[in-house]
Amino acid sequence: MTDALTLVPQALTAEAFAPFGDVIEAASDSPEQINYGNTKKWADLALVDTADGDGHTAISMFEGLATRMPLRVEALERHPLGTQAFIPLHGEPFLLLVARAGDAPKHDEVHAFITNGQQGVNYHKGTWHHYLMAPVDGARFLIIDRAGPGGNCDFCTLDHALVIEPFVK
Amino acid sequence: MTDALTLVPQALTAEAFAPFGDVIEAASDSPEQINYGNTKKWADLALVDTADGDGHTAISMFEGLATRMPLRVEALERHPLGTQAFIPLHGEPFLLLVARAGDAPKHDEVHAFITNGQQGVNYHKGTWHHYLMAPVDGARFLIIDRAGPGGNCDFCTLDHALVIEPFVK
Repeated sequence: MTDALTLVPQALTAEAFAPFGDVIEAASDSPEQINYGNTKKWADLALVDTADGDGHTAISMFEGLATRMPLRVEALERHPLGTQAFIPLHGEPFLLLVARAGDAPKHDEVHAFITNGQQGVNYHKGTWHHYLMAPVDGARFLIIDRAGPGGNCDFCTLDHALVIEPFVK
Repeated sequence: MTDALTLVPQALTAEAFAPFGDVIEAASDSPEQINYGNTKKWADLALVDTADGDGHTAISMFEGLATRMPLRVEALERHPLGTQAFIPLHGEPFLLLVARAGDAPKHDEVHAFITNGQQGVNYHKGTWHHYLMAPVDGARFLIIDRAGPGGNCDFCTLDHALVIEPFVK
């Protein structure tokens, strides 16, 4: 592992994540009031873009095995035809690794984020990312992405491996 | 309340709910294995249909006040231009009242369901339904529905009021 470089996750915020996608959270202090005052609504929190190549929006469920730490990362993936949202159903912080859409990223263009347990994310079309990293065995996520014909998953290998050390949740 | 008729909720199943929409749940015993065996995937669990009238798919967050029981119901609503999905982020069973899309329903065409705490639902376009009934104060739901121009909420009044008694979760 002599070539592996340590990457330290930062707390996920909408501002820091903006180049890569949307943060899905009830962040605003002034949600709409609907249903005769019985419901607060935080509206339209993410751009869902799934129509390319006869695609449609799919709602799926993922269940993960806990990611082993420290995590060694040598490759990322992207979905060129559609956005992809992950919303945690488990309340645990989870780890994200992302790089901007475009050419395959260099190792120093990869960013690591840790969520606060309530936040979901929506990757822009083409955002490079690590596949789902579950915080605990059996953690479930709701996924909103594109289904349809055509190849919608590319992979890239990093020029240097990255290592994410265990972190305090 | 002499005219109110009691309606007893039944346990939510995909089969019983099929006339009204999809049940979003990890029901199959044979999910796909993805991400090198680290993730189980239950794919494409609901039909999302939001494009009518220049609409787009919106991901929103709702937070409810607990519904007071017994519940008296005199009206329902529908969204003629798009589907609407509710996925619980709280793990508590919640109540649903629905009637088939089409003309305003009679009171004996209204069905009540109770979820198992892990299930979400996706209403077909035009399915009549009661607005969100939260099981506890502060219960959050993820909503996937249509945003865009045009009137997308109709209301109807029932010919007889219905009453839902408190039920054992």
